[in-house]
Amino acid sequence: MNDPGRQFLRRLGYVFKDESLLDRALTHRSAGSGHNERLEFLGDSIINFITAEFLYRAQPDAREGQLTRLRALLVRRDTLAAVARELDLGMALKLGGGELKSGGRDRDSILADALEALVGAVYLDSGMDSCRDLVQRLFAEKIAQVQQRRVAKDAKTRLQERLQAKGLPLPTYEVVEVKGAPHNREFQVFCRVESLHNPTRGVGGSRRQAEQAAARLALEQLNDQGH
Amino acid sequence: MNDPGRQFLRRLGYVFKDESLLDRALTHRSAGSGHNERLEFLGDSIINFITAEFLYRAQPDAREGQLTRLRALLVRRDTLAAVARELDLGMALKLGGGELKSGGRDRDSILADALEALVGAVYLDSGMDSCRDLVQRLFAEKIAQVQQRRVAKDAKTRLQERLQAKGLPLPTYEVVEVKGAPHNREFQVFCRVESLHNPTRGVGGSRRQAEQAAARLALEQLNDQGH
Repeated sequence: MNDPGRQFLRRLGYVFKDESLLDRALTHRSAGSGHNERLEFLGDSIINFITAEFLYRAQPDAREGQLTRLRALLVRRDTLAAVARELDLGMALKLGGGELKSGGRDRDSILADALEALVGAVYLDSGMDSCRDLVQRLFAEKIAQVQQRRVAKDAKTRLQERLQAKGLPLPTYEVVEVKGAPHNREFQVFCRVESLHNPTRGVGGSRRQAEQAAARLALEQLNDQGH
Repeated sequence: MNDPGRQFLRRLGYVFKDESLLDRALTHRSAGSGHNERLEFLGDSIINFITAEFLYRAQPDAREGQLTRLRALLVRRDTLAAVARELDLGMALKLGGGELKSGGRDRDSILADALEALVGAVYLDSGMDSCRDLVQRLFAEKIAQVQQRRVAKDAKTRLQERLQAKGLPLPTYEVVEVKGAPHNREFQVFCRVESLHNPTRGVGGSRRQAEQAAARLALEQLNDQGH
């Protein structure tokens, strides 16, 4: 392997038992047979699963729609290409002459596909646990970024910040009803905001969820009022 | 659990260590909190991965595009709903009053989502190996169908195998006409099968396409003859 290839391997931090898998993962179809498209198919599904599992466990209060949005941020092409660039993956790629001349080493689609193929190759080389470790390490920074983005979306925080920015009193939350068996509670919460005539009502499986729901409604009503 | 629920569990053939995961997987959001939407998010990614891995290994000659199409057939809503119906999953679901009255137990979207949630629950209950076993068992018939469909697309292979199975000579193909400009050729091919009186004729934009068309006709004529 050439120098850029060795640099890539150092950054990858994974040693293949079967180097033919690595070769294949790094071979773009423009370089002929033995290319990485089938590995890309496999790796795409693995990155999807690993990021889904990670978010499911890391975000116990997030609803399905939020998890789906966060995952979409992690697996979209430009995120994958950015992770590939941090690895200097482009310099290790085998490309056909045409792609080489037209800047294929730095093209998002080629980089993203090769990263997926690489993950597929690691999975075949040593199984899901090693592969999960690798993906979580490679995506650590991106995962931290999307999780921060989610925190920013938190309705209670947004409501509080909006009222503070206008110098208005903070909202108050009150649990007005708890019902259901212990394993299946339902909380009802009122959120009171001075500039809204009536409290908004939120329902959820936890106090926090009910408060978030009530805060979301309050934000909507403030939007409607043009606040 | 009620009788239909027990019947579902027998068909599922998996015993949960943590029954709260099963409860959650079977609870539609219309039935209130503790519903299955987060598990559905997780299970969707797991079914995608397991079917991708299965096809990758089972179809070593298939290209990425073919693998993608086969997988799409397996994970689309009506396939998932069909698998759920074979399990009688609908009868085990917890639904809110409105969904119950409007036939939610037999709605494709609800069944497909619950099947995904169930797979997510099995994964959390006992890991990927058990989950892979379950998915491959539940989808065995659908997997066989899509693999046949792929095989079925290749008429020349089917014709050859049919004749070999009967100990008959293999068919012969002959290009009898090529016309049109270089970028727009039309090939005409004869396929000769000993037990058919006349050759069948196929036309197509490539020699291969014309041969496939001729082979399909030969297969139809053999069917008509009861061969």
